[in-house]
Amino acid sequence: MFNFIKPVYAHCDLPCGVYDPIQARIEAESVLNIQKKYSDLHDEDKIRSIFIKEQRADLVKQHLWILWTDYFKPEHLEKHPNIHELLWQTTKQAGAVKKSVDPSSGEKLLSMIDEITEIFVDTKKV
Amino acid sequence: MFNFIKPVYAHCDLPCGVYDPIQARIEAESVLNIQKKYSDLHDEDKIRSIFIKEQRADLVKQHLWILWTDYFKPEHLEKHPNIHELLWQTTKQAGAVKKSVDPSSGEKLLSMIDEITEIFVDTKKV
Amino acid sequence: MFNFIKPVYAHCDLPCGVYDPIQARIEAESVLNIQKKYSDLHDEDKIRSIFIKEQRADLVKQHLWILWTDYFKPEHLEKHPNIHELLWQTTKQAGAVKKSVDPSSGEKLLSMIDEITEIFVDTKKV
Amino acid sequence: MFNFIKPVYAHCDLPCGVYDPIQARIEAESVLNIQKKYSDLHDEDKIRSIFIKEQRADLVKQHLWILWTDYFKPEHLEKHPNIHELLWQTTKQAGAVKKSVDPSSGEKLLSMIDEITEIFVDTKKV
Amino acid sequence: MFNFIKPVYAHCDLPCGVYDPIQARIEAESVLNIQKKYSDLHDEDKIRSIFIKEQRADLVKQHLWILWTDYFKPEHLEKHPNIHELLWQTTKQAGAVKKSVDPSSGEKLLSMIDEITEIFVDTKKV
Amino acid sequence: MFNFIKPVYAHCDLPCGVYDPIQARIEAESVLNIQKKYSDLHDEDKIRSIFIKEQRADLVKQHLWILWTDYFKPEHLEKHPNIHELLWQTTKQAGAVKKSVDPSSGEKLLSMIDEITEIFVDTKKV
Repeated sequence: MFNFIKPVYAHCDLPCGVYDPIQARIEAESVLNIQKKYSDLHDEDKIRSIFIKEQRADLVKQHLWILWTDYFKPEHLEKHPNIHELLWQTTKQAGAVKKSVDPSSGEKLLSMIDEITEIFVDTKKV
Repeated sequence: MFNFIKPVYAHCDLPCGVYDPIQARIEAESVLNIQKKYSDLHDEDKIRSIFIKEQRADLVKQHLWILWTDYFKPEHLEKHPNIHELLWQTTKQAGAVKKSVDPSSGEKLLSMIDEITEIFVDTKKV
Repeated sequence: MFNFIKPVYAHCDLPCGVYDPIQARIEAESVLNIQKKYSDLHDEDKIRSIFIKEQRADLVKQHLWILWTDYFKPEHLEKHPNIHELLWQTTKQAGAVKKSVDPSSGEKLLSMIDEITEIFVDTKKV
Repeated sequence: MFNFIKPVYAHCDLPCGVYDPIQARIEAESVLNIQKKYSDLHDEDKIRSIFIKEQRADLVKQHLWILWTDYFKPEHLEKHPNIHELLWQTTKQAGAVKKSVDPSSGEKLLSMIDEITEIFVDTKKV
Repeated sequence: MFNFIKPVYAHCDLPCGVYDPIQARIEAESVLNIQKKYSDLHDEDKIRSIFIKEQRADLVKQHLWILWTDYFKPEHLEKHPNIHELLWQTTKQAGAVKKSVDPSSGEKLLSMIDEITEIFVDTKKV
Repeated sequence: MFNFIKPVYAHCDLPCGVYDPIQARIEAESVLNIQKKYSDLHDEDKIRSIFIKEQRADLVKQHLWILWTDYFKPEHLEKHPNIHELLWQTTKQAGAVKKSVDPSSGEKLLSMIDEITEIFVDTKKV
């Protein structure tokens, strides 16, 4: 099914060669869904959702930092000189969603991850 | 790019509704790549690769257990009565790859995850 | 109660051979105690208790998943065909206690773990 | 053996009141079993067993530190003035088993944990 | 810049020889700052601050436990016989700050860590 | 003793305002010491040292990523335009030390962290 995604990349400094921005995206989707549901939750679940969101946002940061440091190479940066700034702003946005239950902050995070994904896909082309 | 994957599912007991077997698959790809590269690594990296593989395999288990307990519902089990057995055997296989550097064990794990993915995709159809 | 369990078993895929359902039970006891004390806590400790309970419930799941995948063997399943269903429902209950501060949900979790323990003890008999 | 321990106690600073030295003992049993099996393992599993043992030993330390700081109270220390020294030496021994595959080091760790358990049980008596 | 701090010490049972009470102090500073800001935070950030404080306090405990078990040696204890009691009380205080948003509890924790640091520095002198 | 270090900074997105590059430095010192001792270790401790080094290097990355995303602000970047490149190369170097037991790689990491520290200190001046 997922065979059109060819994850031929790395996330462990070996390198095993497996990287995929979908990992960050899935966690960011989770953040957004929590924000959307927040106002309808009862009190205890509101509390739970705040720290589940915190953890998800931390995972977004983690996955993006790994992409930045471990996947991207100087030649990628040459072709896409905005990599540093984009990754920096996106991880900052992953910090911002922790402080907010407004879905617009989660949507902004997702669209920033999608920008990173576009660059990532481009680097996979031969 | 990944818009044909519509991750509308959950992995946090809230539920936030975000689940995706691709998470397990990515970690299993990493296991397989480590197995493929193992024999060519120098001694220290052989050691490193053994415990990186251990951690990746644990993540495979983790993601699959969450799918099993948190995503699959009684109605899914009714339609796919092999869910229990398949998830059990696949998590056992994720344990087996820890003990082996033979890529065939990693390939078997991947094909078992693909079987789970097929069921997962089927449960998403309306 | 557990005096007939001689813990000579495994929880690490080596296998070291050390497994014991008491690990899940201790965390579930903790969940139940938190639920019992909840209403008397001051506001900040209410918040703390919600996420301590979340972590304890996650540990219950973790310990039970390990028993399910790593300890139980096909021969156990033959004698106790309800292992899959019981472990599935019990880990789902460990998810349910996260959403509730009602001690009855914690008590139900404990009694389900006790059912698993009975099967576990039976598999230890020669 | 532990049948006189009725685990109605705490390990989370709430306090939920759930403590039990059996948690440390189970991890130490795992360390000992790894040491016993070590010489018969093939190379990759030798490597794995070294870091699984490392993790188990860390869990022993963790559980004992929590008992020391969170469970034991000044009144316990009055009756058992060796608590500080015993817990210190036992956590040091949990460090020592990391450096050794000689089962005698694991056995020594277990007997030290049993000493702690005796004190613990005594503090539970009314 | 930090060259007047000569970190010639260990935190990993190897031993690598690297220990420094500044690790505990930094986390305790974080606890104190959270307590100082608490009353001015909006509701969601109040919740977040409670569990960030919980994690920071756990790190304080962790760093202090490692100093106690791994760094301090019998000869240190001979010269500073209050090490056991001081470390015990300070880790208990790190538990106490979890239950309080009163900065005085965080300040007390910091001054206790400073006492440990003085002993630590003394053990470094030749 | 450490009073000349005034940690007035943050590492938790609250922000609590506590940041300090010494955290990364301590872990990097540990990496270097492991590399220096490596050749003299017996076989099992060689294995242990490889994955302890792996964990320490990961902590270096972690602390540096947090500085990059959470501490550094656009105004810092204006004055120190090499922040992106320097942090990128330093986290890459923290990956490189995992693959090597040559102390020169650890020393290079330390000197890169010291460069970051100089910038950090400069941003603290008024």
